[in-house]
Order: sequence, then C-alpha cells, then structure tokens
Amino acid sequence: MNYPNNIKKDVHQTPISYKNRGMDLEEELNLSNEYYIEIDKAYIYKKPTPIGVANVSYNLHGKVIEKGYFKEQSTLDYNGLYRGKYIEFEAKVTQNKTSFPLANIHHHQINHIRNILRHQGIVFLIIKINDLVYLLKGFDFIEFIDNNNRKSIPYSFIQNTGYLIKYGYRPPLDYLKVVDEIYFKEE
Amino acid sequence: MNYPNNIKKDVHQTPISYKNRGMDLEEELNLSNEYYIEIDKAYIYKKPTPIGVANVSYNLHGKVIEKGYFKEQSTLDYNGLYRGKYIEFEAKVTQNKTSFPLANIHHHQINHIRNILRHQGIVFLIIKINDLVYLLKGFDFIEFIDNNNRKSIPYSFIQNTGYLIKYGYRPPLDYLKVVDEIYFKEE
Repeated sequence: MNYPNNIKKDVHQTPISYKNRGMDLEEELNLSNEYYIEIDKAYIYKKPTPIGVANVSYNLHGKVIEKGYFKEQSTLDYNGLYRGKYIEFEAKVTQNKTSFPLANIHHHQINHIRNILRHQGIVFLIIKINDLVYLLKGFDFIEFIDNNNRKSIPYSFIQNTGYLIKYGYRPPLDYLKVVDEIYFKEE
Repeated sequence: MNYPNNIKKDVHQTPISYKNRGMDLEEELNLSNEYYIEIDKAYIYKKPTPIGVANVSYNLHGKVIEKGYFKEQSTLDYNGLYRGKYIEFEAKVTQNKTSFPLANIHHHQINHIRNILRHQGIVFLIIKINDLVYLLKGFDFIEFIDNNNRKSIPYSFIQNTGYLIKYGYRPPLDYLKVVDEIYFKEE
C-alpha cells in the first residue's frame, strides 16, 4: 500500500555525548525513541501522566486547572509500533542493589500487562539496577509474580531472566536490538 | 504459549438500554470497549488527557497541582489491541450537518496518524454526524487532507468513503464488526 510519508522529522545534528551516566533513564529512552523515529525504525512515544482534576476556572485562554493531583498510571509509560507490532513498556530505576521492589509496579499495571500478553502485544519492563539496564519480558515478570509470594524481584532473577541492554552513542540505549533477539528471532 | 489469564473482569448484569440516544459518543464507546474486554474480544482503552502543570504544592498525600491547563492531545483518544494488531482511533461528534470541520483534529494528531499508518497500525476516526456514526479509515482521511485544500470534510465524502457503524444493544456501537470487514477481510 502506498502510505502517506511526509512527516516532519526532528533532526539532531549536534554531536551530543550520550555516554553521560548522569542522564536519567527516561531521558535516555526519550532520546532513543527520537532516534528511532528519525531513522523511521519504530514509532514509540511516551504517554502523558494521568491527572485527576478537582477544580477548574475559566480565563481568556480557556479552562484552567485550579486543583489537581497525579493519578496512578494504569497503563505503562511507553507505547507504539515496531515492525508492525504493538509494543508497550515501563521504565524503572531502583537504587536498591539486591532487588527490584514490586511496589514500583501498580496493581492496575500488572493487569494491563496480562491483557497485552493475552492479546499478543509485545510488553516488557526496562529496569535500571546497579547502573545496568535490563529488559525483563512481561511474560517472565508475570510468571515471577504468579509463582513467588515476594515483595521484590531479586537482582539475580533479573540477571538470569532479563536481557542486558548495552549503552551506545546513538541511540543511547538500543533496546530494540534486544527486542529483535527476543521477539523476532525466528525471522 | 501459555499466557497468564486471571484478569478480573467488570461484569455488567444489569439490563441497560443502550439505545438511549442521549448517551454521548464517548460513553457509547467506553461501554462498547468494556463489553469487548468482558468477552475478551479486544483490549482497547481510553488514554488520559494530557495536562500541563504550572504550579505544584505538597501536602500529606503528596504532590498537588495548584495550577495546570489542558494540553492538546497529540495522539488519539483510544488505543489498544485487536486480533493481535495495534489499533488506535479518535472519536468526534459534530453538530454540523453538512461537513466535519477539520479543526477537530490537531496538526500533531494528523502526524500521529501518518506515523501509525507507516508503521502498519490500524488507525481511524469515528465521526458522529447527523446522528449517524461512521468509521473513516486513517488512510482515507490522510488522502482527503493531502488532496483537498479544505477546512472540512463534506458529509457526502464521509457517507461514500466511511463505513456506517450500527447501533445495537451490547455493545452499543459494535465498531469492531466494521473493523473486521475493512481490515481483516482477506482472512
């Protein structure tokens, strides 16, 4: 099919060092996603944080929120399309050195992961722990939760079951390389 | 693959008349999506409205937004998975009887539709006009925009190019029946 193709692209010509470990995980992923869009490899974007609105007023520009609060995200942070497939993931950093606390992922998000799996989407967590970044498949995450009555995932489980994402220049975190290995191996 | 399957479902046993035309399009689509989840036919949910936060304060419960504003949605309202495919759409009602004003769809959303099409997602608009509900394929919408220098889509174009979604009982708007005909015809 002859799909329309004239999307404007952000071009980043300035040589920026992405090796800077001071950059936070979200920034690293946003830059990686921008890069993927730039080379038209994938279309993955960050979802807005849901807000509860308690009070509004009106001014010349329209509705203004006078009181609101941040709601728990019931879906995951990043969502989009890769190689024609639905993809969604959550990115989390833990300062904990021995395990990933499950309090990081809300109950609604766990249900969301189950739903995506059941409907054949690609879903995973990206976890930064001990300065290393791992991709943990949604399937393995749910299996862990269902078979372990624990409040955290041991680091050893993440090391053994997860997939290490290596740091690079552009993109800073080439997580789609790992996605290729896991989800598109047979092709 | 043996996917985990124990998601809690909302069960609606009360017989509600969905024929009530007073119900707005969003409500009709939310109920339809709940029904699809209930029978496990699809997993499609509404995205949160993006909010810009100008001022925050802190109380015992955490961060409170003291000033914020509604941002333009740069993606579409509904997103999810159907038959293993990425699906996304926007729902709009117009009181205009002769055309659908293009001001209803923002510039960023048009780019978003192009991106989804290019990456092989299913994307469309659901337009309620003259009390009838039509599905207009993202592809046809973009084709119209690219080939017509107009500020609105004539009703006749929607009638001829779009697909009528019929009202029913459960779900109130069985738009996936139309999606089947358009996107899964060959199977």
